This record gives sequence, C-alpha cells and structure tokens, in this order.
Amino acid sequence: MSRKYRVGILGATGTVGQRFVQLLENHPQFEITALAASDRSTGKPYVEACAWKLAGKMPDFVKNITVQPIEPPLDCDLVFSSLPSSVARETEEAFARAGYPVISNSSSYRMDEDVPLLIAEINHEHVGLIEKQKQKRGFGKGFIVTNPNCAVVSFAPPLAALHRKFGVEEVIVTTLQAISGAGYPGVPSLDITDNVVPYIAGEEPKVETEAQKILGKFTDGGIEKADFTVSAQCFRVHVIDGHTASVRVNLNQTATMEEVIEAINTFPSLDLYSSPKRFMEYCDEPSRPQPRLDRDSGNGMTITVGRLFPDNVFDYRFVSLSHNTVRGAAGSAVLNAELLISKGII
Amino acid sequence: MSRKYRVGILGATGTVGQRFVQLLENHPQFEITALAASDRSTGKPYVEACAWKLAGKMPDFVKNITVQPIEPPLDCDLVFSSLPSSVARETEEAFARAGYPVISNSSSYRMDEDVPLLIAEINHEHVGLIEKQKQKRGFGKGFIVTNPNCAVVSFAPPLAALHRKFGVEEVIVTTLQAISGAGYPGVPSLDITDNVVPYIAGEEPKVETEAQKILGKFTDGGIEKADFTVSAQCFRVHVIDGHTASVRVNLNQTATMEEVIEAINTFPSLDLYSSPKRFMEYCDEPSRPQPRLDRDSGNGMTITVGRLFPDNVFDYRFVSLSHNTVRGAAGSAVLNAELLISKGII
Amino acid sequence: MSRKYRVGILGATGTVGQRFVQLLENHPQFEITALAASDRSTGKPYVEACAWKLAGKMPDFVKNITVQPIEPPLDCDLVFSSLPSSVARETEEAFARAGYPVISNSSSYRMDEDVPLLIAEINHEHVGLIEKQKQKRGFGKGFIVTNPNCAVVSFAPPLAALHRKFGVEEVIVTTLQAISGAGYPGVPSLDITDNVVPYIAGEEPKVETEAQKILGKFTDGGIEKADFTVSAQCFRVHVIDGHTASVRVNLNQTATMEEVIEAINTFPSLDLYSSPKRFMEYCDEPSRPQPRLDRDSGNGMTITVGRLFPDNVFDYRFVSLSHNTVRGAAGSAVLNAELLISKGII
Amino acid sequence: MSRKYRVGILGATGTVGQRFVQLLENHPQFEITALAASDRSTGKPYVEACAWKLAGKMPDFVKNITVQPIEPPLDCDLVFSSLPSSVARETEEAFARAGYPVISNSSSYRMDEDVPLLIAEINHEHVGLIEKQKQKRGFGKGFIVTNPNCAVVSFAPPLAALHRKFGVEEVIVTTLQAISGAGYPGVPSLDITDNVVPYIAGEEPKVETEAQKILGKFTDGGIEKADFTVSAQCFRVHVIDGHTASVRVNLNQTATMEEVIEAINTFPSLDLYSSPKRFMEYCDEPSRPQPRLDRDSGNGMTITVGRLFPDNVFDYRFVSLSHNTVRGAAGSAVLNAELLISKGII
Repeated sequence: MSRKYRVGILGATGTVGQRFVQLLENHPQFEITALAASDRSTGKPYVEACAWKLAGKMPDFVKNITVQPIEPPLDCDLVFSSLPSSVARETEEAFARAGYPVISNSSSYRMDEDVPLLIAEINHEHVGLIEKQKQKRGFGKGFIVTNPNCAVVSFAPPLAALHRKFGVEEVIVTTLQAISGAGYPGVPSLDITDNVVPYIAGEEPKVETEAQKILGKFTDGGIEKADFTVSAQCFRVHVIDGHTASVRVNLNQTATMEEVIEAINTFPSLDLYSSPKRFMEYCDEPSRPQPRLDRDSGNGMTITVGRLFPDNVFDYRFVSLSHNTVRGAAGSAVLNAELLISKGII
Repeated sequence: MSRKYRVGILGATGTVGQRFVQLLENHPQFEITALAASDRSTGKPYVEACAWKLAGKMPDFVKNITVQPIEPPLDCDLVFSSLPSSVARETEEAFARAGYPVISNSSSYRMDEDVPLLIAEINHEHVGLIEKQKQKRGFGKGFIVTNPNCAVVSFAPPLAALHRKFGVEEVIVTTLQAISGAGYPGVPSLDITDNVVPYIAGEEPKVETEAQKILGKFTDGGIEKADFTVSAQCFRVHVIDGHTASVRVNLNQTATMEEVIEAINTFPSLDLYSSPKRFMEYCDEPSRPQPRLDRDSGNGMTITVGRLFPDNVFDYRFVSLSHNTVRGAAGSAVLNAELLISKGII
Repeated sequence: MSRKYRVGILGATGTVGQRFVQLLENHPQFEITALAASDRSTGKPYVEACAWKLAGKMPDFVKNITVQPIEPPLDCDLVFSSLPSSVARETEEAFARAGYPVISNSSSYRMDEDVPLLIAEINHEHVGLIEKQKQKRGFGKGFIVTNPNCAVVSFAPPLAALHRKFGVEEVIVTTLQAISGAGYPGVPSLDITDNVVPYIAGEEPKVETEAQKILGKFTDGGIEKADFTVSAQCFRVHVIDGHTASVRVNLNQTATMEEVIEAINTFPSLDLYSSPKRFMEYCDEPSRPQPRLDRDSGNGMTITVGRLFPDNVFDYRFVSLSHNTVRGAAGSAVLNAELLISKGII
Repeated sequence: MSRKYRVGILGATGTVGQRFVQLLENHPQFEITALAASDRSTGKPYVEACAWKLAGKMPDFVKNITVQPIEPPLDCDLVFSSLPSSVARETEEAFARAGYPVISNSSSYRMDEDVPLLIAEINHEHVGLIEKQKQKRGFGKGFIVTNPNCAVVSFAPPLAALHRKFGVEEVIVTTLQAISGAGYPGVPSLDITDNVVPYIAGEEPKVETEAQKILGKFTDGGIEKADFTVSAQCFRVHVIDGHTASVRVNLNQTATMEEVIEAINTFPSLDLYSSPKRFMEYCDEPSRPQPRLDRDSGNGMTITVGRLFPDNVFDYRFVSLSHNTVRGAAGSAVLNAELLISKGII
C-alpha cells in the first residue's frame, strides 16, 4: 500500500475536531500528524488539552501529539479545518497560501464564488472551481474547499434527487436540530431540557442560501446557482445527534410518489472509503426517520428520508434526517478529501 | 353568591380528566359532583382509581368521590368529557340526549356541522349552532359543544388575528408537540429520549381541517368555513407540556410587520373567569416562545407568539405556542362552559 | 401595615438571584431596593443585565432597577447574597462591616464557628451566635448568617427529626442532584442528556460536614456539633429542580417505623410567612418522593420523605427530597430573614 | 470451521430478545434458527411481529423467520430465554426437560440452589452445579443456567475483585438505573422526564441477595454463599442504557487504594468470543464513569469503575457502571453459552 497522506486538524479540540480524530483513527488514506488549537491548548499533549466528549475513549494514537498553534507551517500534506467563523477566514487563507489544501467545515468561504461547496455525491464536478480559485487568489498548491452547514445537509440530498429529475421551484423547510450542532459546552441543559428553542443564531440565512449553490451547475465561468427559493425556520430540540428536516417542495414537473421515492433511492453513491453503500434511503415506516434510530445509518453518512406525501399547499412534503457531526460536518470533509485524491487534485 | 353548577367529568382518571379536577378546584362557578371513568375504576374512590400524574398532590376534595360508570344519569348539571374517540361519539350523544350539556374535549363531534368547535375568544358566536343542533338531533336541554385539537390551538389564534384583519389564504404549519398530548402512559420514554418522532397517529388531518371551521362565519344556515388551505406536518418532541407551531402564511392583503404584531396583541380577550388578561402576546425576544418558559403564561391560557418575519416563499412566518393540556384541552373546555353560562345557554 | 424592609440582592442576575426576585415579588415584609451584580452588568437596567431563566416572565417591578456594583453602600436595610465563593468571603464581610445584615446563601462562612448555619425550623436558636460574632469581628449593626448547601437541605430535616428523638450515629447519603444547582449556563446539555455525572466539584465535603453543625447544640461557647459521621456520594442527574437523597442511618436508640414516621410528620413548622404549613411530609406511596411531582410542595419549602424501611446493614433507610433553589437556596435565606425579624435581630 | 450451534430465542420480540438478535448477527459459534414469542406474534415473520427498538435497522437475516409459540420443540440446539418472570419458571423447565440447554436471563431460577447464577469471569466453576441439577430434576441433556439481575451486574464485578483479595463484609449500594431495564413500552416518558423515580418493583430484594451467591464457593454440596450483607436502594434515572452503582464497602482486611485499584484492573478476563479484553477497567478521571460515555466500553461488556475513595463511615466507596442490556442481560447470556461450549457442557 502506498503511503498515507499526512493530515493536520485545525480546531482539533472542539467537538468537530474530535469527530475528525475519531473518523481518521483507522483511515486507509490519512494519518494525523498535526493537531492545532487555540492558545490555551498549545504546547500540551492532546490528551491534556482536549476534554474528550464523544462516546468511548480518546484513541491512543493521538494522546501524545503536542497541540500546535493554528498557523502554518504544520507538518502535514493537507489540513481539515473546523475553526469558528471569527478566525476561519483569515487562518484558512493563510494555510492555502502556504500551500496546503484546506478542507474546511467552517462557513467563511462557503458562498465565495470560486470556492466549491461540496456534497461529494451531488456536485463533485464543482471541484473544477479550484483551478480558478488558485489563479484568482494567487495560491500555489494550496486551495480551499468547503462542506455545507449541517442543517442544509439534512435536506439538500433529497432535494438534489428531486431537482435532477423534476426541477425544484420552491422549498419550505423547518429544521429540528440536535444539541451537538452547537459544540461544547454549547447549549446549557437548563435551556433545552423539557424545551424547544426556536432560534439558532445565524442559521436561517445559511439554510436559505447554500442549497442553491450546492445544486448549481458548474460551467466555465463558475457555478450557476439553482433557481429556487428556500424558506427556513430553525429549531433546537432535545436530541444529541441528528438533524431532522420537515420539508415541503414545489416541483417544475409533475411526478408521482413512486417516481419521487425512486429518485431518492437510486441517487448514486460514490466508490470512496467514507461513502456509504447508500447515499440516501427512503424508509416506508410511518414513524421514521427518527434521529436516535437512524442517524448512524451508513456509519452516519446515509441520509434517511420518510413520510413523503402529496401536500395540501405544495406538491410534496417529506421528512429527512442526517447525522449532523458526521455527514453534516467531519464525515463530509473527510469524504471531500477522498474525492480530491480520487480526482488527482491532492 | 349564587349556587355553583354541579359538574361531572367523563374520563376523570386520564391526564385531561386530572387537569379538569385541578382547574375546577377553586372555581367560583363549578363544583365537581360526579366522576366517571372506565370499568376498572368504577366503584372505587377517586384516590384509589386514579394515578395522579400532575405536579403536586391530588386535591383533597375529590379523593373520596366514588367513580361511576360513564353513562347517564350522573348527579350534575353538565358534563366535561375527555373520552377516547372510540367511545366518545356514542357516550356523548347519550348524555346530551339525557339532558346534559356536554362540553367535550374529544374529537368525535368537532367537524359535525351542527356542533360548535369553539375557541371562546375567536368564535363565541358559533354557540348559535346549539339551537339547530337540538332541533336536528331531537335533544331536549342537552347539547354538545367541542374545543379543538390541542395542536390546532397552538396556531389558530394568531391565524384568527391575521384572518380577521388581512384574510388568510394559505397556511403551512409544522408542529413540535409535547408528550402530555398523548396521555398516560402515552409516549414510552425509550421512544422520545434523545429523539424526535415525525408521526402522531391521526393528527395531521385534524390540523389541516379544524382551523377553517373555527375561523368560519356563523350564518343562519350554519358555519361557512374560512376559505384557506392548511398543510400540516406533526412531530412529537421531548417536551412535557406546550405545543410549538412553526407557521408560514399567505395573506389576501398586504400588511406590515407592525400591523401583524398589532393584530395579534390587540385581539380581544373575554371577561370570563378562565380568560387570561391577554389572549395572545407577541414576544420580541429572538429566542421566544419556548415551551418551558412560556406555556404557563396567563395560567396556561395565553398564546405566545414570536419570531415574526417576512418569508422568502410565503408572506410571513412566525412561531406560536400554547399549553396543550390547559388552553389546548381542559382549560378551553372550562372556558367554553363559562361562555355558555354568560350567554344564558347553560 | 408597617413599612417594609428594603433589601438588596448581591449576585442578582444569577439563578439564585432570580429566585430571590421571584420570591420577594409580593412579600409582605420586604421590598427590593437594590440589585448588585458583577462588572459587566453594572449600570444597566436589570431587564437588560439579566437573562431571565425561570419559568414565566421577569416581574415588572425589577425591570428598571439599575444594577450596581457589589460593594457597600447600597440603599437597603439588609442584603441577600448568592455570590460565588471566590468573592463571597471578602464581599460579605465588607457588607457586614458596613452595617448590613448579610443573609447569605454562599458557602464561605458556613463553617465559621461564630456564624449561624440555619434551617430555621431546626436550629433557630443558633441565631444566638450573632452577638458573639459581632463582638469577635468588631461588627456594628451588621452580621452574617448562612443557610446550608442545597444537597444538605435535602436530608438534614428528616435527620433532625430522628436525631432529636432517637440520636443519629452514622449516616450514609447518596444524592441525585438537579442541574439548576449548577447555575446558568451551568451543566452543558451534552454532559447530562442520557447521562449521569458522578461528580460535583467540592460537594461531597460540604455534604459530609454541614449537617453536624446544623443539628448541633447552641451553648454559651458556641455550637457543639452533633456527634455523628456522614458519608456522601454526589451525582448530577437529569432533573431541572429538586435534589433527591438516598439515606441510610444508624440510630442511638431503637425506634419503630411508626415512631420514625411520626417524628418526621410532627416536626414543628414555624409561623413565618415563608414557612410551609408542613415542614416535612412523609409520603406512603411506594414511588414517592419524585422531584417533578413533589418539589413544589409547600411552595417549594416542604421536604418530602418516603420509602422508609428497616435496612439490612443500617437501622433504617429512606428517600428525601427538597427543592434545591427554593428550600435549598433563596427560599431558606428569605425564611432566615423573616426569622431574624421575628426575633428582633433585624 | 465447525458448524455453528443452532439457537432459539424465547421472548424474541422484547428488548432483550432484540439484543440477542443483534449480538448473534455475526457470531462465529451461533446461528439463530428459531424465534419464539407470545401468542399475538406467532405465525408472523419476525419483521412484522417485532417493533425493533434498537438503534439501526433490524438485521436482514431474521426478518423472515416465522415466530413460533414459546414451547418445545424448537428447531435448535439450545435456547436463550428472556421471558417475563410470570411465565419463565414453567416454560424454562419445559425446555430443559425436553433436552434443551436453557441460557436464561430471567429471574425465576436464579436463586435455586442447583442452578448456576453466572458472571463467567467471576464464577465459571459454578457450572459444576449442572450435573447435580440434572440428577435432582430428572433432566436428560437439558439444564438451566442463569445470569444475574442487571443492577447486580453493575457492582458485583468490583465486589468480586475486592472479595477475592480482601474479603467483603458489608455493602451499601444505591443504583441509578436506565430506562431500557424496564423493557418496551416500559417507563412512560411522563414519569421520567425531568424526574427520578425512587422505586423499581421487585428490584431491591434481588440486588440484596444475588451477589452473595455469585461470589459464593462451589463445593461438592453446592454453592456456599459469600458471607456479607447488602443494602440496596434502587432508583430509575433518565438514562437510556447503563446502570450506575454508588457503592460503600467494608472489607475483612485492610487494603490501600493502590491495592484495591490493582485488584480491579488485574481481575482476569476470559478468552471467549464475547469476553472483553478487559473485564473491568478503573478510570482515574474524577467525573467517570458516566453511562453515555462508558457503557459501550468493550462492546458493552467491560465494567467501568471510578471514584474510589476511603469513606467516612465504611472502608471504601466507589462508583461502578455496566451496560444493562448487554453485560447486564443478553451479552452475559451469550457469554455464558460460550463458556458452556468451552467447557464441553454444550
């Protein structure tokens, strides 16, 4: 077997950073060689710098890696970034400029027109933007690719299936989002126990704009965004992992229930290490999808869809679910890196 | 003070039955004189027949009332009913036929065209149906009035405010409903802990049809239903009490944010014992309404509305909340009885 | 009616500070005239400085009080303090020295031998320490009294009943403590959802030492501590309010079940505004006490005891419950102030 | 590889039955050939008879197995039983008498003196009882072995480590038990949300008696029970899986902290398929063990211990945790079957 790519993680001690560590533990293509985090962690071994919050124990192989400052150079071939937006823009550019491919889970560059916003199964051809990006920004070997907001990932895949076959015209989505989406310490228990919070700072605008880019067409000039509008209301609910989306959609063409379900079930997956066998799975049972039962489907990388019905006001409604810190964050970033390798870009 | 009306409770041992007991404890117009429940409870004192599940202790005054079968006659002037739909239709008719006003929280008669479906502040004039009902069904003194499904009550009030001022054309609602709505034992803890359930049996059709009757016009011939369509997706979330509704609405006339908020805040309350000082209250804070913080507003009888914004797809969106076992069930029924007294119908 | 005492609240924006505001809203003897909190709150009206986290809305009467720094002078006759221990010791002394009675919920002075540690119904005679305290510390009119740790309050009352009648020799207590005990933001939801945390920083030593002082005898020389040992293990569980204690106790004298229950049920309450009708209540039902059902008993001031049985290893075991932010914090402090007024000390 | 043993599951549709299915999915020694459940399930394919409640989907290989009545004969070499106690005694005997080894998770036979009550790592030599059992009851090839109550399994392992080295004299245990221990539908969500229930029917007597048998000595005449007393208080807490035990223990010999921890950490595991690499693991972190983070240690088969301290009243205290439906139920039964095979008894 060929040597593994050496990866660094920016924001390694946060909840998404921990997911990166977990997902990369036995990864055939990557090995973690650098962990970077904020000032109060630097210089410490990871085991001391990081309060591990995932089920199970911190993997042994990272315990003694010394945490470094979040700045280039790092001893690695590429970096995964899950930095808070306040620092992501500047820092990720610095890494790209220093020659590192930056596979980012942050929101800073998602809507920049020369930066791919990838859900690998849906729009892998958007990696074509990278060349343009390098030229425009004067990067050498380095570049930036991003994955979408975790709430967007909960419903963009079935939307892609519908858009490809029938055309999507209007979307109304209400999200029921898990507490892990807010990181750690994140949501205080006094706020969410026996409660629902109808507000997640900054979320609704992201949910209303990212899907159009993801489902857009790559052309020479860039991405031609998909031409539909999205309305989003975002709620925090008392669930640990797994964002649920309640969706209504108007289509450009008529489609039967069977055609819609088939479009979802037959949307192709990819032949990459982190691709699930099935990218999306339609579930017939009337009470599914449910976060606790379905979020780990396909190791957290499969989107589960259910409750598709003709709607009184729109054409169809359905419910869609994804694991927000795997498919909606670290898992998608790792998949993006695998995609870039398979295309020879890394 | 004049003597109190003697009331019976049908389904007295269930969770809504217990709310009736709690709300009537020191009520100035009513005293409980009869408690009726299913076979396995009859003949026992209430304290033995009923596993009290509300916070606090069972009130002393009901402990030794012997539970009777759910059939007329009962020693009372009127009955409150919270029977399961399987038995409600036949039993409530029997009581009405035997001369009892039946103030029902069950769904059986809600959509019958000669039966009022009341939210007292919104459509008290619908009590005009009662005369017609008595004639049609050959009732004497008895009759049936109903209150709506608890999820409908979470959003019908702000809808009424908008409909009255601007006309409502289309409504899309996604409900996040509390576990108490399913009664006791109701939702198993294994189903709802760290979870959301996207299905409540029989709920979506009710939510899609009741509001049009509630907001309908009373005419000689009956109720002329309001002419709008509703699309509903109903979720069970991990909240004890308090149904939250995520709503989008299209209006017939344009209205500014200020006008909409004013329509909500100025919708008149009633001068009845159980009417809250404010029927609806718009809350400016970005993270409200929240079930745990707002459900008890106005002793559980005030509807809290918030997060009103212009919507990308519809005219407006907002979030609305009501206490499902008070305003959405027992409290509304008690208010309906007070309304009937104030109008001389009881 | 005579004029009300003017009170200041130190730490007014925290969760216990909010409880003080709530409990004093319509109090016949006190009116809030000063609210003090940390630097980032001072100068703002309370409504802006404080993120209100109790059910319901912030009472109108405090909204526009300007928050002041936590230092004397404040425009009031006495102060209630719920300061973090890091600042409590120095600040509370400053207020006492400046002439203010300091009714403290903090832990700093609890074990000082000249400072009363009061559960008013149990050891009101300990207020006799105040004179000595004033002399020793050179205070003028000011002084400090404290109430116990919230977990101690969950089991010290039944212990007092047993100690008075039969003598307590050894106590083993395991506490199941509510999240509100950690304040706000307090316990992260990711830590406590679907979980139990077997550790509360600094708690076990408090629980092992305070009860002996509370149940001690007041003599000329001070408090002669009760001569029993306590072993404590403290757990955080997923409950909003209400600390539950699992207790085993060895007694000096034999006692029957009936005698123990009678000792609990007949322990006298006080005739003060915040005293519940019953200080303690033994509940026969096999599954009680439960925090959600019993914490609000006596407006949160009654201790509920249940599941008393002879034990295989110790003499008896039982379960005991109190509302941790009412009886275990703000409510006890208010009761202490009422006690001091009734004794002419304030 | 030799052929697999064909196994039947009695009570296949319950929560423990589902765990059996999950654990046996890819088991190298067993294959499921028969599923038996109560009347309303028989005749249906498992996929229709069983409401799958574990995370993930029902494994494909069982979906079409037709559920049979719970009576011999079944087409299998041995049976795993998780029957409710009301039917277990009679039914399990019928299977044993009909020649089946019965590996039971039910409580019916646990305390019978000729029936092994096994935690394989602790008392595998108790299988010596089987011969005696066969003779006494006139069984042929069949017999019954049991595993302990799930709460007992949470603390008996560290107790065994201490007993073996230092002798245990007295034990006080308070358990904080998960909702899955009550099966499905089990604990109503209204009972456990924002709550603790201090009562689990029939649990305390089991917890007070089983450990003495488990830690007993096998002699010719049977099991000589360990000579210590146990006091148990059992609570239900809001945790999905994982029973936590708060334990105090008096020892016959003095032991240092280090010696106790070493006794726990070095207690030997077994070389069987379901044995975890480490039977018990002592965790130094002050806030561990926690159910959500530690229950899956060793695939749910490792016991995690922490917070060992000298105690004020007893010699030591500690906290111990096990996965109640894996190590505390189905996983232990599967391990018992592996043990019996390794000893040539099956």
